[in-house]
Amino acid sequence: MNASTRASGVAQAIAGRRALKGFDPEHRMQEAEFNYLLEHAILSPTGFNLQHWRFVRLRDPELRRALRAVAWDQPQVTDASELLVLCFDQQAWRKAPERYWHNAPQEARDYVLPAIRQYYEGREQLQRDEGMRSCALAAQSLMLLAWEMGYDSCPLGGFDFDAAARLIGLPADHHICMMLAIGKGVREPWPRAGQLALDEVLVTDRF
Amino acid sequence: MNASTRASGVAQAIAGRRALKGFDPEHRMQEAEFNYLLEHAILSPTGFNLQHWRFVRLRDPELRRALRAVAWDQPQVTDASELLVLCFDQQAWRKAPERYWHNAPQEARDYVLPAIRQYYEGREQLQRDEGMRSCALAAQSLMLLAWEMGYDSCPLGGFDFDAAARLIGLPADHHICMMLAIGKGVREPWPRAGQLALDEVLVTDRF
Repeated sequence: MNASTRASGVAQAIAGRRALKGFDPEHRMQEAEFNYLLEHAILSPTGFNLQHWRFVRLRDPELRRALRAVAWDQPQVTDASELLVLCFDQQAWRKAPERYWHNAPQEARDYVLPAIRQYYEGREQLQRDEGMRSCALAAQSLMLLAWEMGYDSCPLGGFDFDAAARLIGLPADHHICMMLAIGKGVREPWPRAGQLALDEVLVTDRF
Repeated sequence: MNASTRASGVAQAIAGRRALKGFDPEHRMQEAEFNYLLEHAILSPTGFNLQHWRFVRLRDPELRRALRAVAWDQPQVTDASELLVLCFDQQAWRKAPERYWHNAPQEARDYVLPAIRQYYEGREQLQRDEGMRSCALAAQSLMLLAWEMGYDSCPLGGFDFDAAARLIGLPADHHICMMLAIGKGVREPWPRAGQLALDEVLVTDRF
């Protein structure tokens, strides 16, 4: 995208990305960069192609300050070039789901539309789990692509979710997954705090 | 990694990755490739660096067949070179959390260890939401890196989670987030089924 683009490659981005809390508060992201990020993020997968993620982009500085106040006063909430609240519409599966399949052949639509209703109907925990999953898949796309574009990021779970929901006018059938700050980091990250070895988290066949 | 490596870059991987269901059942992934994938996946972020994800690698063909039977008979469950069940230890926050911070300076540990307990204690929905989130962040790392290595993947939510949990001997305090098949795709993906425009999922400041 520009001169600060980093060595490209998924492996490099995964290894290079770190959560930063200190961002340059004067830096503004170009609209073309923001759109490039988001246009890619929405190519991440969702179950039944629901695309139930909703990205709330915080542009109003007043609102950023209010969010920071309910987020343990973490500076990245106001200082990062972009702040997104990643949320999802838990009822997207019943809101004209034919939209998500309009390019598919008729026989695929005839199969998938009843299957969507059957899969989600009455299963609220599953609906919620899937919303969290979808937003996080998109979040990792955003963090890795931001890194490749020369940006840093910080995923945030440390805030009052109910207070944040009120501030952004979150509809009652939506939930927040996380916040994500993206901007120009102003210092090097700490060394990794305590990486577990692969064999501590990898199981073969059965626990 | 090898001759089939694709044009590198995060943006290319995000745009190129598609969920495939048809995999070459004869293909075996090299151990070095599998380790490369997983060693990167575990560099994805988790809240408080809990690293509560647990990756169950299904190697036993019998177990693969049993999982396929509880996953709508989807062929990728048996045919993909690798099948992972991504789950998380919902109680990882209370299991010797000093492990996750052993490289940090003492003052950071003195701050973060009580904060972990305070954040998670008694908040079961939040613990579960975060587990789903962490596994999905790692899953997107895996899918993008697999693509860059010349592999295809398929995230799976369509299966009987309780039956799968029994098959892999999932501990009672763990939950499954999803399954992920990785292998050599044997046909081109369908066109995208019905991509929503960015302005349908992007909100500025407030709903």
